[in-house]
Amino acid sequence: MRNSGTSARYDRLRDIMRQEKLDAIVAVSPENVFYMAETYIETQKSLRDRLAIALLPLESDPVMIGCVIEENTIEDETWIRDKRYYFEFRESPIRFLADAIVEKNLQRGRIGIELDYLSALYYEELKAALPEARLIPCVRLLEKLRSVKDEGEIALLTRAAVQTRRAFEMAVAETHIGETERMLGLRTSRHMLELGCDKVDFLVMGTARRSILVHALPDDSPLLDGEEGRIDFGGLFGNYNSDVARTFVMGNAPAKHQDVFSRMVEAYRDAIDACRIGNPANAPYFAAKKRCEALNLPFNRVHEGHGLGIGGHEHPILAPDNTALLEENMVMCVEHAVHVDGYRYHVEDLIRVTKNGPVVLSEPEFNPRLLHIL
Amino acid sequence: MRNSGTSARYDRLRDIMRQEKLDAIVAVSPENVFYMAETYIETQKSLRDRLAIALLPLESDPVMIGCVIEENTIEDETWIRDKRYYFEFRESPIRFLADAIVEKNLQRGRIGIELDYLSALYYEELKAALPEARLIPCVRLLEKLRSVKDEGEIALLTRAAVQTRRAFEMAVAETHIGETERMLGLRTSRHMLELGCDKVDFLVMGTARRSILVHALPDDSPLLDGEEGRIDFGGLFGNYNSDVARTFVMGNAPAKHQDVFSRMVEAYRDAIDACRIGNPANAPYFAAKKRCEALNLPFNRVHEGHGLGIGGHEHPILAPDNTALLEENMVMCVEHAVHVDGYRYHVEDLIRVTKNGPVVLSEPEFNPRLLHIL
Repeated sequence: MRNSGTSARYDRLRDIMRQEKLDAIVAVSPENVFYMAETYIETQKSLRDRLAIALLPLESDPVMIGCVIEENTIEDETWIRDKRYYFEFRESPIRFLADAIVEKNLQRGRIGIELDYLSALYYEELKAALPEARLIPCVRLLEKLRSVKDEGEIALLTRAAVQTRRAFEMAVAETHIGETERMLGLRTSRHMLELGCDKVDFLVMGTARRSILVHALPDDSPLLDGEEGRIDFGGLFGNYNSDVARTFVMGNAPAKHQDVFSRMVEAYRDAIDACRIGNPANAPYFAAKKRCEALNLPFNRVHEGHGLGIGGHEHPILAPDNTALLEENMVMCVEHAVHVDGYRYHVEDLIRVTKNGPVVLSEPEFNPRLLHIL
Repeated sequence: MRNSGTSARYDRLRDIMRQEKLDAIVAVSPENVFYMAETYIETQKSLRDRLAIALLPLESDPVMIGCVIEENTIEDETWIRDKRYYFEFRESPIRFLADAIVEKNLQRGRIGIELDYLSALYYEELKAALPEARLIPCVRLLEKLRSVKDEGEIALLTRAAVQTRRAFEMAVAETHIGETERMLGLRTSRHMLELGCDKVDFLVMGTARRSILVHALPDDSPLLDGEEGRIDFGGLFGNYNSDVARTFVMGNAPAKHQDVFSRMVEAYRDAIDACRIGNPANAPYFAAKKRCEALNLPFNRVHEGHGLGIGGHEHPILAPDNTALLEENMVMCVEHAVHVDGYRYHVEDLIRVTKNGPVVLSEPEFNPRLLHIL
């Protein structure tokens, strides 16, 4: 076993299986396969039918199932000893899974499986192959397990957040009015890669009237003097995500942008301050809402942030209905955005819940400010 | 309607619905939603539960359903007039879909739906909401529709392939022995972005003994004189994919690399030459196999390539079991790879099936060769 964390993870998972009376857990999403089996099957994201599966029984040894194309990667990475490979388009990964479950005499068992990930077609195939098994959704359970990060994960997430934030600051310093959104985005991506990012996963940017487009990509729009813009972007660093948002202005921007931004930051600070052990996960949402109302700012958030880790949106989602309690070493993106007069303003940082309150991981000298392109 | 292609697409889709006796098609994957509704919901790739749905009835008007967070993007992009938005975590996209189906009086109809994409949990919810509907997998049908490209798509795919190939050639020219895989990968990514790529989607690279790792990411391994390496990479250009592979050597490489590569290219050329109207989709596979056997090269391919478009692997897959016939204006990646003595050699280009035979789109002056890092 390469990583001592894994054994501890499997132990924690077995405790949960006992509580939930599950005989096995079946991980099928790339995130949970990586978390439990330590092999990251990148192609699962684009080739969804190419399943990789970790079968994790309570009482017997785990089995890793992958496409033969991934054999070298899996052999190189996973600590699981029993590895089996199927030929894509010719053999079914579900057949391999059903066979392994029967082999372990769990075909009448309670099997926790990621039914929020597994496709309906694969699900029907599995039910037909194991008519007596009880297939039970296990996403909440795995989400909860993954929501509390260990020190190794926190170190990776911190580095990812810091390098992502820095990459944009470097790009801003090099970019000038009259250049394009595309140039600003390109420099940001380049610095992320130089600073250790394995893959820029998303980079949303819009300036002027495009700032309100939630998922606009940088285009050939020029960066106009006096205008405002915002970026929301992130990448993968060692299979862990970053996710940062910033608001910026070009040249001599009207004072209204600074005014809206400053008020928004008050709500943002309150949201971050509510990230405390024992608070419900909706506390940051309601803290921001209250402050926005006091400051006469519109508040139309769906959530105020989300956990971050191997996945881009993890438990806890800081949504108004979420009353799950925050725990030590949960790591979350807190984000606030507001629309005013056709402009979107947005900030997002990475927060760790500690015994001493929230700690901003993405920017040790935390000081939310408008960035300036000159 | 922004794009005259869409109307033609919906007409073709309606013809297929009549043939298959379907009352509606429900697209839920980002690829098919984009193909039919012209709005690309990027976040669907990372946030799988945030569904975007295009309901496309045979006899009535289509409905677009999206998360309220995507409202601006959808309003900006889709030609569909009837748009409905759900609040994430609070409202279910499946509820919206079921309501729209009932509204159109199709709750007892035959509904084609992407059951290879929809998760088992959403599927169960939809079945419960529409107990009398017949939910029929429609992936093959949509794959077939998308496999023949129109001229606009071919232009996008050609540009994507050419710029991707050129980006690596530029990076090779700038990189020197003793630098790292990471530097070579970074320059490749940077040039892709400069040449119009919106997002580098994957970049697999391994040199020396790492060349055999199918999904190795570039790391700090130095580029060693005399060694071999390979890259397999691609990105998104206007929501269409590129996917190119190349083999390279550093400095004074032993002649065996050139020897293996040259023989492999003969098999590769035969595979490309088999991409002709009316040939079965497995013809390139068997053409390459036959030549490898004649040349005493190992042949252990799972497939010899795949369609490319909005998706990274599309119909037709050039696999031994696929006897579907190739048609004019199918656009495919043909790829060949071989393992010899612990090294992996790999080439991949983009091919268009035309009345005059195969045309290589990624490199007009097609001349497969080992690239050299000096």
